[in-house]
Amino acid sequence: MSIRNLVDFGDMSRADWEAIYSRCCDIMDHPSDYIDACKGKVACNLFYEPSTRTNFSFQAAMLRLGGTVFGFADPSSSSTAKGEKLKDTVKMVSSYADVIVMRSAREGAAKAASLYSDVPVINAGDGGHMHPTQTMADLTTITRLRGSVDDLSIGLCGDLKYGRTVHSLVKALAKFRKIKFYLISPRELSIPEYLRAFMREHGMWNVEVTGLESVIPQLDALYMTRIQRERFADPREYERNKGVYILTRRKLDRAKKNLLVMHPLPRVDEIAMDVDDDPRAAYFQQARFGMFVRMALLSDLANQARFSPPPVEIGRGPVCRNPNCITREDLYLPPLTKMQGDTKCCAYCDKAIFSDEN
Amino acid sequence: MSIRNLVDFGDMSRADWEAIYSRCCDIMDHPSDYIDACKGKVACNLFYEPSTRTNFSFQAAMLRLGGTVFGFADPSSSSTAKGEKLKDTVKMVSSYADVIVMRSAREGAAKAASLYSDVPVINAGDGGHMHPTQTMADLTTITRLRGSVDDLSIGLCGDLKYGRTVHSLVKALAKFRKIKFYLISPRELSIPEYLRAFMREHGMWNVEVTGLESVIPQLDALYMTRIQRERFADPREYERNKGVYILTRRKLDRAKKNLLVMHPLPRVDEIAMDVDDDPRAAYFQQARFGMFVRMALLSDLANQARFSPPPVEIGRGPVCRNPNCITREDLYLPPLTKMQGDTKCCAYCDKAIFSDEN
Amino acid sequence: MSIRNLVDFGDMSRADWEAIYSRCCDIMDHPSDYIDACKGKVACNLFYEPSTRTNFSFQAAMLRLGGTVFGFADPSSSSTAKGEKLKDTVKMVSSYADVIVMRSAREGAAKAASLYSDVPVINAGDGGHMHPTQTMADLTTITRLRGSVDDLSIGLCGDLKYGRTVHSLVKALAKFRKIKFYLISPRELSIPEYLRAFMREHGMWNVEVTGLESVIPQLDALYMTRIQRERFADPREYERNKGVYILTRRKLDRAKKNLLVMHPLPRVDEIAMDVDDDPRAAYFQQARFGMFVRMALLSDLANQARFSPPPVEIGRGPVCRNPNCITREDLYLPPLTKMQGDTKCCAYCDKAIFSDEN
Repeated sequence: MSIRNLVDFGDMSRADWEAIYSRCCDIMDHPSDYIDACKGKVACNLFYEPSTRTNFSFQAAMLRLGGTVFGFADPSSSSTAKGEKLKDTVKMVSSYADVIVMRSAREGAAKAASLYSDVPVINAGDGGHMHPTQTMADLTTITRLRGSVDDLSIGLCGDLKYGRTVHSLVKALAKFRKIKFYLISPRELSIPEYLRAFMREHGMWNVEVTGLESVIPQLDALYMTRIQRERFADPREYERNKGVYILTRRKLDRAKKNLLVMHPLPRVDEIAMDVDDDPRAAYFQQARFGMFVRMALLSDLANQARFSPPPVEIGRGPVCRNPNCITREDLYLPPLTKMQGDTKCCAYCDKAIFSDEN
Repeated sequence: MSIRNLVDFGDMSRADWEAIYSRCCDIMDHPSDYIDACKGKVACNLFYEPSTRTNFSFQAAMLRLGGTVFGFADPSSSSTAKGEKLKDTVKMVSSYADVIVMRSAREGAAKAASLYSDVPVINAGDGGHMHPTQTMADLTTITRLRGSVDDLSIGLCGDLKYGRTVHSLVKALAKFRKIKFYLISPRELSIPEYLRAFMREHGMWNVEVTGLESVIPQLDALYMTRIQRERFADPREYERNKGVYILTRRKLDRAKKNLLVMHPLPRVDEIAMDVDDDPRAAYFQQARFGMFVRMALLSDLANQARFSPPPVEIGRGPVCRNPNCITREDLYLPPLTKMQGDTKCCAYCDKAIFSDEN
Repeated sequence: MSIRNLVDFGDMSRADWEAIYSRCCDIMDHPSDYIDACKGKVACNLFYEPSTRTNFSFQAAMLRLGGTVFGFADPSSSSTAKGEKLKDTVKMVSSYADVIVMRSAREGAAKAASLYSDVPVINAGDGGHMHPTQTMADLTTITRLRGSVDDLSIGLCGDLKYGRTVHSLVKALAKFRKIKFYLISPRELSIPEYLRAFMREHGMWNVEVTGLESVIPQLDALYMTRIQRERFADPREYERNKGVYILTRRKLDRAKKNLLVMHPLPRVDEIAMDVDDDPRAAYFQQARFGMFVRMALLSDLANQARFSPPPVEIGRGPVCRNPNCITREDLYLPPLTKMQGDTKCCAYCDKAIFSDEN
């Protein structure tokens, strides 16, 4: 593998991803070959916001490789998490660990950490921005159960406006060929304009619909997400809509026999319990695939050599206007930007920077 | 061993128990033979209520077998524990772990978990209902230090009305022969009627007394428990009584030389500190035996093969009226009942179900 | 090594320390030789107050030796920490673990624990009293980077009145030869009288100054500590002073080329960020040395045989008047005292006992 940190799924080439997926399959097929793959290696899980599921998955992954884990699951039980600069925490933790797994509510936190860490940093979710190992779990599920991601018809159902998981998946799937997207959501929660542009640019076939039942027969995979009541200006609008986006056994009657029903979990009620025993329900397996693909990732990154990254400029203020951007709190971060197409963006949170800011 | 889950000590035959005890002794005598007995295996400790002592004991047990542990010690530091259905948490966790150790305030939680888990489930205490590994620690202490449980005179002292530990021990001892019980408690906190019936049915010799000093000379083992002030309607009644049920070095003067003084811990003041250095004080050893017997249990269960349990019916409401029963919150649980003697009982919390409920 | 517990750095002879330092170097130079040095051994980290940095360092140390760790990071997530007597917690935990690492706000807590534990106890900080492994990290940093501690000029800068780290370091350095101390602090926060007396007694060369810039050219090592606003009676006094004690790259211009800049961390703003990339900045390395020296300590203590300490007298009250002394809460602790020079002191918290108390 050629990556040092995993901040964004887009950091990887398709070849990088295929190397990880291939190792993931080897781990699933021969787990005992990997029982000491991280022996003597130590991960530090820094969870600045609780995320039990992701934290457990990373811990189990490291432990199954013969590695070990320390860290915190919640900032409230950590004296360091309060007040200390991210840089100093990362410097300290990278003195002790061989790899850092970081979860934060701040967008760009993992990117910022990677500037200072002597060991690889894995983004386990940074606010509404990225969650690349969830995307890896999703791709592993589809590839392992359907043989390939290319040529499939994929339904994305629920909150497509705010759902980080769905956005990441769409961007990741640009690396694959001839995918058809069925974008199923209430109009109020349809896919954001920048993603529409993204799909156009990358020539990705897609159609937007407001109903699940009519398109379900076309799908090879159906990715369900939760619709939160709070997203609706008018609560009655939510009440009118919610039944449409709940998957039941009855709605599955018209679906293909080998459909994959996926969900990032936790679910609330968007998949009825009677779907769980249908062989097409893949969401619990998806969690297990997530652990295996994290094993593949850790088996590489936790074994990389330590080295100090080169010094970076000391910043003097936020890079962008995004109130959740890590640079708004950690002002010393270097003022990094990047171009996405023609747009100048913050290199931490990827939000566009408008010229009057500069 | 022939068990898949350990929900209730009663799930085991005497032969099952003897197999565990025998392995426990082998572990104590040859700990280095077991240093890799769970290598590559991962336990998940789900503690929905804090219980540091039990949690530590299970963690140390798994670690001493070369296994590893992840989990939470307290629901407040877990996002998953809040709101998510028990079934979904168990499905997720059993994707990552080889064995689940569960502590809950809800009666029947471990039973419910066992219906959905792909890996064995161990009950580490479910409210006032069961705590089978505490019973195993108690039996190990007696057997290891006295050679056998059969033929002994056992004093149970303190709160016999509400003390879950004592109830479990009485039921477990029905598997043994010719035990004499001295039930020592204030009248207000005497043994519940259903246990009296149980002892009659099983022909277990017993006598109820209100004083410790008069019977102490008869005893081979004295099991002390705490009396909580809150259990008394009248606090003055508590103040009058409490001294009677405090074990002191002076009271031990009249006891047998090889008496075992036991306590599930933590103690408050029901055993005076000057008893600790008496060779008859077995309660700190009891904690250590508890770790070893948990090692025996885990060395078997954590090494069992994964498999998905068969689908179960989806329930539509609570099984029984017990306000602490797990079925009152997790309404989808299948409506399981069982007969205990002539009484129809909830299969989760074991409380009797009255016919007008059905 | 000849020590059983590490409560106070002063418990060790210079030969003990040299044995630990020598092992520490061997671990740094040949880490793979130690990958199984604590295989099968289990540490219990009891952190009665959160200290993420110290906790992480001890955890990483144990894990890198092939050992394992359980414990709590914060009393609020522990049922045992609340209410249970320290003795009982220690008895329980030493039934499960091979070594105990204890952090407490109570002065003398580790000493108290060592009276009851069947396994070695390491003090990871007991209130304002002792933090011996921080001192070991400091000495390792100086020795490893400068070849020796003897003959150096050491500046101690910041809050010298309340800084536990600095006090411990001064006492530890009495074991070394020909050290010159530059004590740099505002007058309000100068070194306490008892330490002045200590330095006189031990013939330690020292000078007290209020400015950093004038003495910086003389120094071989500069130990920075934080000045807390709360320490000043008058906040304006703090504002006037604080700049003087902030280390910047500019102030470093006049320092020796091989100066060591040290800090126990976390820093707030007493070292400017532009110092971090100067090769003289040793504070992040210092954290890493701290982990290695803890490995050296644990590799010995975690492998010692279990044995029960002899019974001790049951106390009836506090040993001294120090409101933070462990004996004020755990009244059963034996009434131990010791002489320091001509002064009778509490053997737990080391505070002087005045004769009218006896």
